[in-house]
Amino acid sequence: MSLRATLDFLLYDWLHAEDLTRRTRFTDHSRETFDAVLDTCERIAREKYAPFNRTVDTEEPRLDGDKVILPQATHDAHRAYAESGMLSAAQDYQEGGMQLPYTIEAAANGFFGLASVSIGSALLTKGNANLLLVHGTEMQKAVFARNELNGRFAGTMCLSEPQAGSSLSDIATRAVPDGPDFENDPLGPRYRLTGNKMWISAGDHELTENIVHLVLAKIPGPDGKLIPGTRGISLFIVPKKMVGTDGQLTGVRNDVALAGLNHKLGWRGTTNTLLNFGEGRFPVPSTGAGQAQAGAVGYLVGRPHEGLRCMFHMMNEARIGVGTAAVVLGLAGYYASLDYAKNRPQGRPLGPAGKDPAQPQVRIIEHADVKRMLLAQKSYCEGALALELYCARLVDEQHTADPAVADDARLLLEVLTPIAKSWPSEWCLEANSLAIQVHGGYGYTRDFPVEQYWRDNRLNMIHEGTHGIQAADLLGRKVLMEDGKGLQLLAGRINATIERATNKPDLAADASALAAALQQVGAATKAAWATGVPGEALANAVPYMQAFGHMVLAWIWLDVALVAAAAPAGAAREGRLRAQRFFFHYELPKIGAWLNVVSARDPTCADMPEESF
Amino acid sequence: MSLRATLDFLLYDWLHAEDLTRRTRFTDHSRETFDAVLDTCERIAREKYAPFNRTVDTEEPRLDGDKVILPQATHDAHRAYAESGMLSAAQDYQEGGMQLPYTIEAAANGFFGLASVSIGSALLTKGNANLLLVHGTEMQKAVFARNELNGRFAGTMCLSEPQAGSSLSDIATRAVPDGPDFENDPLGPRYRLTGNKMWISAGDHELTENIVHLVLAKIPGPDGKLIPGTRGISLFIVPKKMVGTDGQLTGVRNDVALAGLNHKLGWRGTTNTLLNFGEGRFPVPSTGAGQAQAGAVGYLVGRPHEGLRCMFHMMNEARIGVGTAAVVLGLAGYYASLDYAKNRPQGRPLGPAGKDPAQPQVRIIEHADVKRMLLAQKSYCEGALALELYCARLVDEQHTADPAVADDARLLLEVLTPIAKSWPSEWCLEANSLAIQVHGGYGYTRDFPVEQYWRDNRLNMIHEGTHGIQAADLLGRKVLMEDGKGLQLLAGRINATIERATNKPDLAADASALAAALQQVGAATKAAWATGVPGEALANAVPYMQAFGHMVLAWIWLDVALVAAAAPAGAAREGRLRAQRFFFHYELPKIGAWLNVVSARDPTCADMPEESF
Repeated sequence: MSLRATLDFLLYDWLHAEDLTRRTRFTDHSRETFDAVLDTCERIAREKYAPFNRTVDTEEPRLDGDKVILPQATHDAHRAYAESGMLSAAQDYQEGGMQLPYTIEAAANGFFGLASVSIGSALLTKGNANLLLVHGTEMQKAVFARNELNGRFAGTMCLSEPQAGSSLSDIATRAVPDGPDFENDPLGPRYRLTGNKMWISAGDHELTENIVHLVLAKIPGPDGKLIPGTRGISLFIVPKKMVGTDGQLTGVRNDVALAGLNHKLGWRGTTNTLLNFGEGRFPVPSTGAGQAQAGAVGYLVGRPHEGLRCMFHMMNEARIGVGTAAVVLGLAGYYASLDYAKNRPQGRPLGPAGKDPAQPQVRIIEHADVKRMLLAQKSYCEGALALELYCARLVDEQHTADPAVADDARLLLEVLTPIAKSWPSEWCLEANSLAIQVHGGYGYTRDFPVEQYWRDNRLNMIHEGTHGIQAADLLGRKVLMEDGKGLQLLAGRINATIERATNKPDLAADASALAAALQQVGAATKAAWATGVPGEALANAVPYMQAFGHMVLAWIWLDVALVAAAAPAGAAREGRLRAQRFFFHYELPKIGAWLNVVSARDPTCADMPEESF
Repeated sequence: MSLRATLDFLLYDWLHAEDLTRRTRFTDHSRETFDAVLDTCERIAREKYAPFNRTVDTEEPRLDGDKVILPQATHDAHRAYAESGMLSAAQDYQEGGMQLPYTIEAAANGFFGLASVSIGSALLTKGNANLLLVHGTEMQKAVFARNELNGRFAGTMCLSEPQAGSSLSDIATRAVPDGPDFENDPLGPRYRLTGNKMWISAGDHELTENIVHLVLAKIPGPDGKLIPGTRGISLFIVPKKMVGTDGQLTGVRNDVALAGLNHKLGWRGTTNTLLNFGEGRFPVPSTGAGQAQAGAVGYLVGRPHEGLRCMFHMMNEARIGVGTAAVVLGLAGYYASLDYAKNRPQGRPLGPAGKDPAQPQVRIIEHADVKRMLLAQKSYCEGALALELYCARLVDEQHTADPAVADDARLLLEVLTPIAKSWPSEWCLEANSLAIQVHGGYGYTRDFPVEQYWRDNRLNMIHEGTHGIQAADLLGRKVLMEDGKGLQLLAGRINATIERATNKPDLAADASALAAALQQVGAATKAAWATGVPGEALANAVPYMQAFGHMVLAWIWLDVALVAAAAPAGAAREGRLRAQRFFFHYELPKIGAWLNVVSARDPTCADMPEESF
């Protein structure tokens, strides 16, 4: 099944996306407008992204003087994407948007990731603008957010620092008030920032007129010292080039210097940078009363010391975005290896039929082990796609449903987000490895696309919170929050699916298996926290998350299978039911091994003496 | 623990390698001579290989005219290796060798793979020469094998063809007698070969005076047609440059043309080529009576139609070699990530101690999940190293022990070889992924070595028989051969280990777990074959192999732990016992999920209709 056919089934037959058009916000929409968006994105991706996926891998971003040079194809793709209106598709009409449901936007974005995941960095620009639309002043929205949404400016998120990595409480970028009138700047309270930011995707390029950096930094206390911990963190807009209140460039360069490009294993189409703020390479003249100070000019967003809260606003959608990228990379490998397997003759069937070497070879898709590798890919990737769309649907529920339903959606999303981020980044990467394996030696060469998908996908377990961070978030926070109500909500939905499946003879056994899995995960959650000691509970948080993820995917597959089973007989129906069965027979039974160590609070790793490694 | 410390423990304390010096063949040896070999290899690897591992990745082999250009470092490393005498170390004194046990040779080779797996292609040259020493004529040994073992010539194995891949019965390279006196050539019956060979490692280069290709080809029958199937396959020596009976080059180039270089995901230090035999680019004048014929000149090795038998002679050692390469790549990532984790400060401990952001950050090795990722790597890689050395020891048993013991070793090796090849290629690759994960974003950059280890290691599941081929070999042939005697032998050894461990309070529970696993694998083997239909038995051969492999590794670890436990307390002892415990708590329980589908002869994949993918 093509991505489009799978999306159509999941969006309309399974998730009833058309029901969204009954909500006030989406009332102008219809299946036709949704389809038009999917059509447009599929076409742009096919024409402007897919043909250049290898190009952006081999022609890595490089420096020419202090300019970052990207392939022409990246410029063309960026322009086509901006012109399509997709940057602002989900925004209000008054922002120039089309009030598209997030569910449809997320689905449509899949085409770009499938075609070339690293050409685009639109997710960052959108996330940046979205944040400003929620937390910025009217002027900040007008000058920065709207120019991001119309494609003139691009956006970044500057969180990590070389000495801090994922430990945001340890960031050391300093923001001091810029002159006596610092509070009166029409663009927001004006500060001067000094510090180094690491891992900044799309941190420098010539794709747009300007780049809007959203930067976490600390405002020193009265003693001149930075406040330790995350409490001290504030959020700033730091444009690469200074901008007037009319949104036009003033001609002054801000003191944001590109200190280096990271050379990566994959995902090479997106520049990844080390940026130095306020190192003095581009001194900025005084912009208000008083002497010019050193530092990059930044405008405070929201209130001081509330920077992290603003930044986390966008976290769930960013993590669903990463999960979706992992899924479509997995699907890209699946489609490539399926095509290869259908066309490559090699070997003969098992048994008497294969004994005659004078008979022609069969295509490798006729071998059981190749089918196993293909069905595993289908089961991992189509199941994970369903999960991502389910989460996207929850985002729409959270924003447009009645308050009680919306609050349930919010809480369920809190619990599911670590899975939506982590599960595809692990298992759709495994799918990419299987796609290489189906190709044999050819898969190991750069003449075929699958090795690049595998390299590209390896990033997803690392960025936007590593596997370990997601696992600690799940077991250390999400399943506990609001007295475990999120976990109860999830259990309620799983039980509803089980109940419906129990009545279907073909699915009843799987319904029982899922019920047992839910019980096991629940018991392991309790056992992990039985002593109440975080060090004991979280020692095996990653195996817990792996088991939890497999349970969630089994639930998603069973729910999808209920809809698939009701469809008329045909190749697609059979394929979905097989992929569901694969998951229950080959994958779900793995959870016991993971949960054993969780339930036992197994200290084998946590107590390992350092000198014994 | 360094590789050397681990090797010392496994070789001497666990495998009692010194006992080999009581065998006639090894009587001149002692621990001192073994250590001298290990010292030398460790030093050469450190000086000539390790510093250039990234160089050979970035400076891929390239063509200059029809010459393959490799970095100078590769030439230097090749020279140092040849001069060390390691090419012929295992050979008889009369061949210029030092009659080194294969166990020690395999261990010593680990240093080169650890330092730079793709610089060397010595395994192929040694395998080639070994084959000729067994199956070649005295003249072939003198002219070809000995000049390979002294480093003047290099060797290749030319099996695959573009249209055949792993299906050797479908090769189409044709060998016809070269003139009326073809049988009288002093170098062996002379043929002319035409055909294309794919995936030929080290197929062309300027490292040596000459390259000795061992080529599988078919001699047409009286009707001029090739015999279908593997029966028709013969083996030929095809030198790149023609050689006289004195071993000197005659100045005539043979008609072997480099048709292309493969550009790979990793393992880039080793040239991989497509070779055309007899395409006419380098026509060879008549070398006997009669007119010159078209084709590359080749000399028959052994008897016609027995080519595969000769080639398979070297298969077990080649597969142990691949497994060992996968292991040391895994260890390379383990050591790199261990070093990183010990030095990188980030984050704070869980619980009250970590709440104070004014306290300095801790090194990441203090986090439980990082310890888990490190201990997993140690458990996978050191366990797999033990397995490879155990198999190497069996090779020595097979060649030097009393006949009954030697025959047991042969049969056990047949059963264990698919595991020795496949298990590290899957799990030490997973170790490399964990090494990236420990590094976080840095691991995804090319500034750190771990991403290259991961790319390099991905090859090992593909070459020398894919995972699928190993699995079919294990379940379709090895566990059945000689009425299942190989499996019984293995069960006997596993039970002996269990019996010894049952008496140790700390290991008794693990002994029971291993006993249960052995029983499960045995039952699944029977259930898979219960209907006697290969298509049903082998539909889930890979999950079977995965479970079998985990059982074997658990056995190896328990056996190693028995020796470790008897050692005085200390960091190394604790580390080995932890790695063993990790395997039993975190890994062995996985086998149930794999064996379920084997025992059920689950047809979900095998019956999947092609149109439903």
